[in-house]
Amino acid sequence: MRQGFVLVISGPSGAGKTSIAQALVRTVPGMAFSVSATTRAPRPGETDGVDYVFCSPERFQGMIERGELLEWATYAGKLYGTPRAPVETALAQGTDIILDIETTGALNVRRAMPGSVLVFVVPPRFTELERRIIARSGVGAAELAHRLAQARAELALSAAYDYVVVNEVLAEAVEQVKAIVIAERCRAARPQLLGSL
Amino acid sequence: MRQGFVLVISGPSGAGKTSIAQALVRTVPGMAFSVSATTRAPRPGETDGVDYVFCSPERFQGMIERGELLEWATYAGKLYGTPRAPVETALAQGTDIILDIETTGALNVRRAMPGSVLVFVVPPRFTELERRIIARSGVGAAELAHRLAQARAELALSAAYDYVVVNEVLAEAVEQVKAIVIAERCRAARPQLLGSL
Repeated sequence: MRQGFVLVISGPSGAGKTSIAQALVRTVPGMAFSVSATTRAPRPGETDGVDYVFCSPERFQGMIERGELLEWATYAGKLYGTPRAPVETALAQGTDIILDIETTGALNVRRAMPGSVLVFVVPPRFTELERRIIARSGVGAAELAHRLAQARAELALSAAYDYVVVNEVLAEAVEQVKAIVIAERCRAARPQLLGSL
Repeated sequence: MRQGFVLVISGPSGAGKTSIAQALVRTVPGMAFSVSATTRAPRPGETDGVDYVFCSPERFQGMIERGELLEWATYAGKLYGTPRAPVETALAQGTDIILDIETTGALNVRRAMPGSVLVFVVPPRFTELERRIIARSGVGAAELAHRLAQARAELALSAAYDYVVVNEVLAEAVEQVKAIVIAERCRAARPQLLGSL
């Protein structure tokens, strides 16, 4: 059986990476979500253990100290991390795992797992990014300025990624990331494909 | 405007690479065939300038000497080569070019154009490969043995390729190569994607 790979989807806040990741898991067989741990508060409609594992800062610190996180990073003053064990189990079972994480975390995953595939999702223009961030409920002016500055800094990191998907139309962006998954499953370096010969 | 890339499709004779390449050009916008030059005789139904540029050995030798071929190779005693000028013109216009060529030629293209994408098409099993080769009209036993030996030697080269597509069901193999094209158009190294930012 083939070993799965980690597909990291990241990009500026508001670029639509979470929508793409969710569409992918719904429609691509053999693909599952990694549920991140975070110290931020749940937003309306979010379920603990499904959208995130919501943790106290103390519990999160314990996971870091015991090496239970594949990567972790601070974003907007909160901690986000990827529990290692469920990812490793899924990959060994041949499932490809999507990580919807911030840029710093993405580059840490690449370091920890060199076979990972990194996709950077960007909005077509910065004005569009701004519109999408504003459209989110509960974001004030200071927070908005902070997020835009963060987004600009993250864009500079996109050169370290394997693929860049411009999310102009969501359905097309989803098709592009699907194509990336199918293509990566055909990678010559993944030896199971020649097994039958 | 983005620069096109060369998609090389090769693999053992009988693996179905020509069918895949033809389906791709028919269904993927911005993708065109490179027409190879060859010294082999036309098969029934083949048109000069469309399927191949059919050349005398002398004319082919002249093209080699004038550096007019991007790559060339001998296969089953005949010369096959890719005229350079039409490929370079198409790439500059943003068209991706498919080369349906043998393994030696494929590796030469990679050397000449490092941005090329190499796809190796294999049949699911060797018995299936044998069946497909036999099914072609006009192949005698000696020729068959030769082609099978050649196919086995080519398989050993597949490690140098970017992708391996197992052609068990043609439609699925076509979808996989299409996905490879879409994914490669999203390559982070292709800078036009960030141009609008």
